[in-house]
Amino acid sequence: MSTPTSTQITLASRPTGWPTHENFAVATIELPELVAGEVRVANEFLSVDPYMRGRMNDVKSYVPPFAIGAPLEGGAVGRVVESASDDLAVGDVVLHQRGWRDVAQGDASEFRRVDEIPGVPLSAYLGVLGLTGLTAYVGLTVIAPVQEGDTVFISGAAGAVGSAAGQIARLKGASRVVGSAGSAEKVDLLTSRYGFDAALNYKDAPVREQLPALVPDGVDVYFDNVGGDHLEAALDVMSTNGRVALCGAISQYNSTERAAGPDNMSNVVTRSLRLQGFTLAAYFHHMPEFVAEMGPWLANGDVVFDETVVDARDDVSGTIDAFLGLLRGENTGKMVVRTA
Amino acid sequence: MSTPTSTQITLASRPTGWPTHENFAVATIELPELVAGEVRVANEFLSVDPYMRGRMNDVKSYVPPFAIGAPLEGGAVGRVVESASDDLAVGDVVLHQRGWRDVAQGDASEFRRVDEIPGVPLSAYLGVLGLTGLTAYVGLTVIAPVQEGDTVFISGAAGAVGSAAGQIARLKGASRVVGSAGSAEKVDLLTSRYGFDAALNYKDAPVREQLPALVPDGVDVYFDNVGGDHLEAALDVMSTNGRVALCGAISQYNSTERAAGPDNMSNVVTRSLRLQGFTLAAYFHHMPEFVAEMGPWLANGDVVFDETVVDARDDVSGTIDAFLGLLRGENTGKMVVRTA
Repeated sequence: MSTPTSTQITLASRPTGWPTHENFAVATIELPELVAGEVRVANEFLSVDPYMRGRMNDVKSYVPPFAIGAPLEGGAVGRVVESASDDLAVGDVVLHQRGWRDVAQGDASEFRRVDEIPGVPLSAYLGVLGLTGLTAYVGLTVIAPVQEGDTVFISGAAGAVGSAAGQIARLKGASRVVGSAGSAEKVDLLTSRYGFDAALNYKDAPVREQLPALVPDGVDVYFDNVGGDHLEAALDVMSTNGRVALCGAISQYNSTERAAGPDNMSNVVTRSLRLQGFTLAAYFHHMPEFVAEMGPWLANGDVVFDETVVDARDDVSGTIDAFLGLLRGENTGKMVVRTA
Repeated sequence: MSTPTSTQITLASRPTGWPTHENFAVATIELPELVAGEVRVANEFLSVDPYMRGRMNDVKSYVPPFAIGAPLEGGAVGRVVESASDDLAVGDVVLHQRGWRDVAQGDASEFRRVDEIPGVPLSAYLGVLGLTGLTAYVGLTVIAPVQEGDTVFISGAAGAVGSAAGQIARLKGASRVVGSAGSAEKVDLLTSRYGFDAALNYKDAPVREQLPALVPDGVDVYFDNVGGDHLEAALDVMSTNGRVALCGAISQYNSTERAAGPDNMSNVVTRSLRLQGFTLAAYFHHMPEFVAEMGPWLANGDVVFDETVVDARDDVSGTIDAFLGLLRGENTGKMVVRTA
């Protein structure tokens, strides 16, 4: 029997501006024998995500930078092929952070067993059935709970979080779901594919001008992926006791000057609104209940999602192409890499 | 036995700008005999409040305007002197809205029986033991709950709500309580009388510049009576998972242009903050638990409060002087009128 190997992608140098192939290296290493408690996993799908570009800089953030010469990390889903752990058996499907390689090996505690759901590709665990979907789910069940009959507005609705949020809102009882997106094509997707009742293109005219006509009964729940002008427009039309989940402020990420905030914050008082920001780390414990609900929705087709699958089964270095393509916006929906 | 009478103050005409005595009339009427279910109440204290000026205009608001020629209304506390109701007995102390008169009469359902608390004047029910105190209490126990060891910041802290809030925060376990006010005298009161650890005068320099030094460990709970620059300054220093109770936006009440909102709303996301606006109407059901806690605090001197008592025992028309004095700012703390 040949010695098992892992082909891994490492960071060769820190990119300045747009990364290129030269910033990466591919190395095949021989894997040591498992020690007690470890497992070996054949990865089936790897995740590439925009946040990874940030980790390639030598800058402190909420996640540490990648080290030069070390294998890159990222979400991955695979299957246990050898186990020296009582917790995981050969054949188990596991979710973990040792991506950017074809075979991963480590202590079983770093791998989380997940159920294989008939009719749902394992890649879903890297997106709509993973942290992306959980973000939408937590936003609309814990932070700003949707109630029967609510009107729900979602900004950045064609994104991975937003498109899941729109469908979850409907399944949780919303009677009207409205979204915003930044192109005519995306706006069309919202109503034709993701079941939104109405959608606006925020590049056509100020959100503040477009939104009121789409929400004649006001907005009970606003899921904010954008901030800025979208939040201001939403505050105009929020109903009494409305709830706002603030999930991101994309519109301000790249601005060097501080943007003026909403000019209608007094509505928060007069309409008894609740605005709550959240980052997902504090809500991981909702994962089991989320998967229990979302799994069947996906299997039944109640929730649809898009992904772009890059085939790297013959050569894991295709992951680099997938990542560079992601940064160029070549994906529709979640970008994943197939490695087995 | 002589026929019972009530001397009532009515709105003679709608004031334009500052009200004067000419806008009011005083009439003594004979009271009819009680019908089944009614009570007659000798008022002991009447409340005069700034919001009453608004009700003198013929403008729709969340409370309807006063009618010309009809007795004015407002908070009052008195004692039942005659009863045709099984619910209230002679001698009962009751809180009600038939103020601006010495004797009130009506269905028992319009009068709420309250306990007389030894060592606490009945006038407290019109302020610190009434809606004013309840506002502070709900803000810090329901909307933005104070937890043991919290740093709490309160804007407009020398006002009736703010001064109660500061003391409640301490009694609920805050380890540091900081307030803002608009004069050196008020700032001094906060630390010398109301037990704040530190206070700033927002007229000395921008709040944003002054606040950080006073809250070296950040702010866990912010009770906002002001909005505008105060909210922005607080968002700068809020700790992760911080809570903000938005009780008013005084700084914007009189502005004709929309004020720019906080330029740091993205902190709501990155620090997982919760901002919640409230108006008291939805929280009246917390009154019993509030009175049960606040009553002993007042009796023990754990919570102190200020009131200006205008004596109108000989002539209820002194209520008009009290109201006009209130508008001129002649009161320290809550302005009340003593009528018995």
